Amino acid sequence: MERYSELIRYIEENRDRYVGWASRLIEQPSISAHRSGLRECAGIVAEMLEDLGMRVDVFEVDGSGPVVLGTLNVEAHATLMFYNHYDVQPPDPLEKWTTPPFTPTIRDGKLYGRGAADNKGNIAARLAALDSVIATLGEAPVNVKFLIEGGEEVGSPGLEEFVRKEQDRLFADGCIWEYGYRNRAGRPVINLGVKGMLYLELEAQGLSREMHSSWGAVVENPAWKLVHALASIRAPDGRVLVDGFYDDVDYEGEELLEGLSLQDFNTGERLIAGLEGNPLRTLLLEPTCNINGMIAGYVGPGSKTSLPTEAKAKMDVRLVPRQDPAKILEKLSEHLRLKGFGDIALKVLQSYPGARTSHRSFLAKLVAETAHPAYGVEPVVIPSGAASGPMYVVTDLLGIPCVSTGVGYYGSAPHGPNENIRLEDFTAGIKHIALIMLNFHRYMHAGDD
Amino acid sequence: MERYSELIRYIEENRDRYVGWASRLIEQPSISAHRSGLRECAGIVAEMLEDLGMRVDVFEVDGSGPVVLGTLNVEAHATLMFYNHYDVQPPDPLEKWTTPPFTPTIRDGKLYGRGAADNKGNIAARLAALDSVIATLGEAPVNVKFLIEGGEEVGSPGLEEFVRKEQDRLFADGCIWEYGYRNRAGRPVINLGVKGMLYLELEAQGLSREMHSSWGAVVENPAWKLVHALASIRAPDGRVLVDGFYDDVDYEGEELLEGLSLQDFNTGERLIAGLEGNPLRTLLLEPTCNINGMIAGYVGPGSKTSLPTEAKAKMDVRLVPRQDPAKILEKLSEHLRLKGFGDIALKVLQSYPGARTSHRSFLAKLVAETAHPAYGVEPVVIPSGAASGPMYVVTDLLGIPCVSTGVGYYGSAPHGPNENIRLEDFTAGIKHIALIMLNFHRYMHAGDD
Repeated sequence: MERYSELIRYIEENRDRYVGWASRLIEQPSISAHRSGLRECAGIVAEMLEDLGMRVDVFEVDGSGPVVLGTLNVEAHATLMFYNHYDVQPPDPLEKWTTPPFTPTIRDGKLYGRGAADNKGNIAARLAALDSVIATLGEAPVNVKFLIEGGEEVGSPGLEEFVRKEQDRLFADGCIWEYGYRNRAGRPVINLGVKGMLYLELEAQGLSREMHSSWGAVVENPAWKLVHALASIRAPDGRVLVDGFYDDVDYEGEELLEGLSLQDFNTGERLIAGLEGNPLRTLLLEPTCNINGMIAGYVGPGSKTSLPTEAKAKMDVRLVPRQDPAKILEKLSEHLRLKGFGDIALKVLQSYPGARTSHRSFLAKLVAETAHPAYGVEPVVIPSGAASGPMYVVTDLLGIPCVSTGVGYYGSAPHGPNENIRLEDFTAGIKHIALIMLNFHRYMHAGDD
Repeated sequence: MERYSELIRYIEENRDRYVGWASRLIEQPSISAHRSGLRECAGIVAEMLEDLGMRVDVFEVDGSGPVVLGTLNVEAHATLMFYNHYDVQPPDPLEKWTTPPFTPTIRDGKLYGRGAADNKGNIAARLAALDSVIATLGEAPVNVKFLIEGGEEVGSPGLEEFVRKEQDRLFADGCIWEYGYRNRAGRPVINLGVKGMLYLELEAQGLSREMHSSWGAVVENPAWKLVHALASIRAPDGRVLVDGFYDDVDYEGEELLEGLSLQDFNTGERLIAGLEGNPLRTLLLEPTCNINGMIAGYVGPGSKTSLPTEAKAKMDVRLVPRQDPAKILEKLSEHLRLKGFGDIALKVLQSYPGARTSHRSFLAKLVAETAHPAYGVEPVVIPSGAASGPMYVVTDLLGIPCVSTGVGYYGSAPHGPNENIRLEDFTAGIKHIALIMLNFHRYMHAGDD
């Protein structure tokens, strides 16, 4: 108990130093979609791990920044892994940021910057937890591994191959996944799973050259074709219209949603008109299909009357466990073919399945039961988050239970402008991870329910 | 006959000088959508008119470049008007031009540059015709007026008001409209009408801020909303689905299409799949609705997973005579409201009705019968072109018959990259206009059929 108070005090006294670690990471742009700054950011991560006394190995992988693996072996009988990523989403639209995305800035008790929540703030918090535990206990109470990749935002292209190849180095008894958010009620949300991802580019080609739009009366316009193809994929009420799309959906863990509602999570944005059923169940346990962007023809000021020569859309299809991304792609291709849009090109940018860990596992109990002392409120445990990530490499390839928690909140705006975390959540998140480290061995030996 | 040979020889000998006039106009960017270079281009036009001995008045109008009115009064009992415009479409996409859009360049007997066909080449050809007629006859055989505006590509915003206010200065017995093209069979196409135009921007608003796209399962996405709204407006086969859209369509002049087919006009681009009926009839005599551009969310390289905060489309609705743009706008708004898209904002960028002149008018006969001596082949006379223009101010407001012919060809790519005219067509077009001037008085007195 005294040790615990000392640890908490140490974390609070060192908060500004730990915020500095997050800022140092944010300051280094590392946009995987543009392949920029990745090696530089991996270098900073490696240095930070080494500063904590870890052995660091850096692995080149195909299609994204290098994987940084940090290992701290204290000869304990339990090993705790952390999965994180140091790459970030592109910062566009830049004009919507109050302060520049790669200039970490503290305002009103919040740290702003691209990656603050997703995922650099979490890297810093976990390193801070380890630092504080070592400082107050003299050494870590558990072996620790940090698996930090540089391609999560582009679908972790090299991760599966890396994990298969380096499986021996990646042994662990449990893994804390990348992120977590406090909901509107102030309760930390603990995710036991993530969705899978099929990220596609659709491209309709029509004309060999730009034509005067008066020809639009009779000549094929790829913008119309793309519009009709997209409209055929998803109904206005959000239901995906591809035959067999929902075949493999189970609602495992649905009982955890009892007593929860979307209002605890949502920031008040308008829901899809005509959306049926419990929206929280839809958000967390159903697959979905979403337009991230689309472009065709002239979009500058004023009017231009010209037929576009091509039309493109970016779409993310978020999958639940048991849905096979390859099969879903096949169904979508077949759908387009049957609807007369067989000549729309489909390019796969990301493809991986979803993952879940049982709420009866020791790890789920550990993460849930250490949350209250860290946050002062009871956590919410949900069977899956709405977001995606390559958790399957941990749960399915390595066979390690995996649970996600972290330092964000409902207003963190990950992937958007003015991404931020609250410093109070950052501190609470450090405490939570430190408590997970302290109690890991005990929960592990008590075992699953 | 001798006079005629002399005229033809004069035109051929002076061709390069006349091409220089076209180049001088092309060199001056004058993009009405961006309001750039308009005053400068109007100044060049005014100077060129003055150099031919015309009286020039320049009128400021709202919403576009000044109107330049050139008057050559030779005290004849007939007055021929020319309508043209010196503004051009934006040159995007710049990277698709072989030589820069505002650097007039001759390659393989063609003059390349933005405005070569639409509409600066025609201004030069008409001035050249007047120059050659004066040079060989000593003076023009008819009073001539040039009405040259600077806002046609943005819907001629100030033109109607100008014409109403300056009606007295604008008396004429016939008007040659802005443009014309030789078809694939080498026959000059004479248009007796144009379509009207309703140019709209549709904007769907959804989110107050950019959100992680995992929320797309339940939160409204303006890109989906716009896609469904657009898909509800036009069927995949090109038919407009707005209730009452085709109510006021007559097929006046349809008999002129006998013996013609789309192949004479089209450059071989793919037609809309499932298009029904005679496509040439659809192209020339039916209204249509077309996407010129659309944009939403992230369209950069790689993948970004974010919900767009807004989605926009630019759409041109091309109308036939008797269709009232205001009524069509009302029907479209009502359609969107009824389909559940009432919150999509409609912004009107252009709005004017179509126009036609009878093929039995003296002017139609004059233009048709002088084409063969100029081009060496019989022309094609069609009741309307597929394109739009504010011809109604001449035909309906001023009550002047109006026919369109000009120096382009099927490969001119007006509004597109590498816009060009063939020098042989430019020369033939000058001859045609010169012959129209020579014979105007005689046809006018013979009267309509």
